[in-house]
Amino acid sequence: MKQENENVESEETLDPDDWESMRKLGHKMLNDMLDYMETVRERPVWQHVPERVKAHFRSPVPHDPQPPEEIYKEFVEKVLPYPIGNIHPRFWGWILGTGTVMGAFAELLAASMNTNTGGGANHIANHVEKQVIDWIKEMLGYPESASGVLTSGCSAANIIGLTVARNAKASFDIRRKGIQCATQKMVLYASGEIHSSIQKGVELLGLGSEALHLLPINDYFQMDLETLKAAITKDREDGYMPFCVVGAAGTTNTGSIDNLDALADLCQQEKLWFHVDGAFGAWAALAPKARNTVAGIERADSLALDLHKWMYMPYEIGCILVRHEEQHRKAFSLTPEYLAHGDGRMGLTGCDLPWFSDYGFQLSRGFRALKAWISLKEHGSRKYARIVQQNIDQAHYLGELVKASPELELSAPVTLNIVCFRYVALDMDAAELDELNKRIAVELQERGVAVLSGTVINGRHVLRAANTNHRSRREDFEVLVGEVIRIGKELTADRQK
Amino acid sequence: MKQENENVESEETLDPDDWESMRKLGHKMLNDMLDYMETVRERPVWQHVPERVKAHFRSPVPHDPQPPEEIYKEFVEKVLPYPIGNIHPRFWGWILGTGTVMGAFAELLAASMNTNTGGGANHIANHVEKQVIDWIKEMLGYPESASGVLTSGCSAANIIGLTVARNAKASFDIRRKGIQCATQKMVLYASGEIHSSIQKGVELLGLGSEALHLLPINDYFQMDLETLKAAITKDREDGYMPFCVVGAAGTTNTGSIDNLDALADLCQQEKLWFHVDGAFGAWAALAPKARNTVAGIERADSLALDLHKWMYMPYEIGCILVRHEEQHRKAFSLTPEYLAHGDGRMGLTGCDLPWFSDYGFQLSRGFRALKAWISLKEHGSRKYARIVQQNIDQAHYLGELVKASPELELSAPVTLNIVCFRYVALDMDAAELDELNKRIAVELQERGVAVLSGTVINGRHVLRAANTNHRSRREDFEVLVGEVIRIGKELTADRQK
Repeated sequence: MKQENENVESEETLDPDDWESMRKLGHKMLNDMLDYMETVRERPVWQHVPERVKAHFRSPVPHDPQPPEEIYKEFVEKVLPYPIGNIHPRFWGWILGTGTVMGAFAELLAASMNTNTGGGANHIANHVEKQVIDWIKEMLGYPESASGVLTSGCSAANIIGLTVARNAKASFDIRRKGIQCATQKMVLYASGEIHSSIQKGVELLGLGSEALHLLPINDYFQMDLETLKAAITKDREDGYMPFCVVGAAGTTNTGSIDNLDALADLCQQEKLWFHVDGAFGAWAALAPKARNTVAGIERADSLALDLHKWMYMPYEIGCILVRHEEQHRKAFSLTPEYLAHGDGRMGLTGCDLPWFSDYGFQLSRGFRALKAWISLKEHGSRKYARIVQQNIDQAHYLGELVKASPELELSAPVTLNIVCFRYVALDMDAAELDELNKRIAVELQERGVAVLSGTVINGRHVLRAANTNHRSRREDFEVLVGEVIRIGKELTADRQK
Repeated sequence: MKQENENVESEETLDPDDWESMRKLGHKMLNDMLDYMETVRERPVWQHVPERVKAHFRSPVPHDPQPPEEIYKEFVEKVLPYPIGNIHPRFWGWILGTGTVMGAFAELLAASMNTNTGGGANHIANHVEKQVIDWIKEMLGYPESASGVLTSGCSAANIIGLTVARNAKASFDIRRKGIQCATQKMVLYASGEIHSSIQKGVELLGLGSEALHLLPINDYFQMDLETLKAAITKDREDGYMPFCVVGAAGTTNTGSIDNLDALADLCQQEKLWFHVDGAFGAWAALAPKARNTVAGIERADSLALDLHKWMYMPYEIGCILVRHEEQHRKAFSLTPEYLAHGDGRMGLTGCDLPWFSDYGFQLSRGFRALKAWISLKEHGSRKYARIVQQNIDQAHYLGELVKASPELELSAPVTLNIVCFRYVALDMDAAELDELNKRIAVELQERGVAVLSGTVINGRHVLRAANTNHRSRREDFEVLVGEVIRIGKELTADRQK
């Protein structure tokens, strides 16, 4: 079976020429990465990328090979020192995850196998992903019969959930006909505090951001139910077709949680789809003292969440759960000839599990389930519950520290793991205070002390600490408060003279 | 700054209790993974997951911690032996990537840093991603001024490209108003051979699959241009609004490439958006002898591609490039207060690079750029070019082997790296031959010899080898052809008596 071929040049591969030196390099990397993670507390949370380093990343594409050892040296010198900082114990900016050692190891294992988990059910990654999804359902009290798929994160999960909602509630075959064939404009509801990914999803889905009716919040930053009911009635009268309510389990600004049980009741009554964006907040369901705040989450028709935030797994991993498997599959399944599913008896495409590509928009999918599987086994659900509760307790502790400091003011009630506060100086006007607090956030970053982010609450610029950090200790929040006050005083020293 | 708190229990973390034993485990994993990759050729390409192993993945969520060493033992015994097989030199099923050692190492490094590359420009991952995107543009001859973002894969990239197309070509503010406000139905074109992710994208975007007008192909499996022109004219007469043509740079079935230059001309004339799905085939642009087949790809308004297929990087990594930065940003940028971009001078949000979250639907984004940066430096563009060319040459070699074998028949011209062929036995009818070839594919898998997939070409079930495998050698294709013939003879032995 060999053809004569006069042009046979020697064949190459991208495998190492020298496996032994590659192995040596790998062990060096591993040691360095462990040192890096173990000593993170000793470094500044964040530091500037120097201009000379930035300039290094403007060179044209390399034509010729560079020795792996040299590339790694470049990485150590020019990449490793300049992270965003989210693995540091005093990083509480936005809502970023912290990662773990075994999570990082799992990524090495997954990339070594490099298995594709899109279709082709008869290989192990699909079983691992199925189990991870089952575990997530179990931990959140979500029905066993629900379908699910792991995603790149909660933005993708929200898009999938909203797509299922849109398609399930349309009165016609929207996959085939498109939105334009709707006789009524489909509208959905959320509070003004809902995450921007919901608006981006609604826009992507062709519904238009005007279809997303953003409702006012109550004193607890929750969607106001009476207003919601009135809006649904009014919109129906006006010829719109309400189809979905999006509840927040943990808003980005304040960590507030909508009254999910009440929303579930309302959606049931009004025959609307109930989607919950539980990016980080869904995991409050684990926390003994906070569990009640997300009661009703298990009643969502679709539930989007992340595992790279409050489950501390390395990026990227999110999940969408859908109560109605058939509607989930109907929104995404598409099987051209080259993806024909096997008959369940033989061969690689023998299908005794669903194809995950039938439940989302990704066809090629990596083995992100492995880090979840390993992490959940490493710590067990009870330890996750304790650490989630610890983060909440720490947030309340920070809230108490703020309240006890005359220089500081709490800007929203601490309901979960987010604390919004600001430095106040009585002789400054509102605009000056806004500037001062923006400046304090920058100074904290510049000095490498801590990373907070800023947001606007009730029209005022405030500091915001979002705690999804398993490395933080109470003493870290004490340092934070001390430094905020010190910097605030420094910056207002002129006035105080 | 310390509060008295009578309930202070001891604080926990998810970091290792014992860093030294974790380090030891990491080194063991690394050694095992290198052995695994180095010896892949010695193992069967694929094997069944035994029922007892499947059963193992049906246990409920673990409540208590399990020692890392034990978890890893489970992984080695129950996960590692049962991959889909795509890193094996004789895996040519669907179009899957092969991965590399440094690519896997890069995933360990990225997960250890665990940096979020969504926003917050002033950290290194954004500079690395920017450089990787610049390199991709350079390699493909795409304009320097174009914008781009790395994605989970080409499905996501297609969704982003089509969204920009839809929004840019709509005559009104479609992000705000939604598709329903269109006065004409927006339609787009592709050949019937286009990848299913285009249809899934069109459905997701609310256009409806009926808006995707699938056109007939010519003898080379390319979109027929005259039919396309006629369809555009006819659709306009019928009151539709044509807005986009999707060209294929490498169809999934046969690897055929649409006449991209002609499509670019036509789109220019007709003022249509030209999107190219170049999932794997875009990289033919690197191959000295195949470069001309994708001429015109650099003229696409948006170009979607993967790096985890024909650039051999570990899952997941794809990319969308958009010629018109402003239109790209306008389709996705959304900046709530908690994501306010800094003023470019100070602090972590000091913005001297675009925020990648403004160019796609992901907000939290991992550091997938790192594996691309490391891989491109490790091998250099010239070696990638040689390996891509090698895969094409090997496909032609397989085509020659097929033609030289009286038992086999080539089912479509070999244009790139995909070979469709089938076993033929003169005394069998069409249905029997279909069954026979399906069975041959299964037998190849069951015996661990090779993985091909099947598809339907001109109504007939055929075997399909898609070669994006840097580990394959000519001898592997000789083995394949020998085994297909042997199995074909075995399965038809009764008839031949």
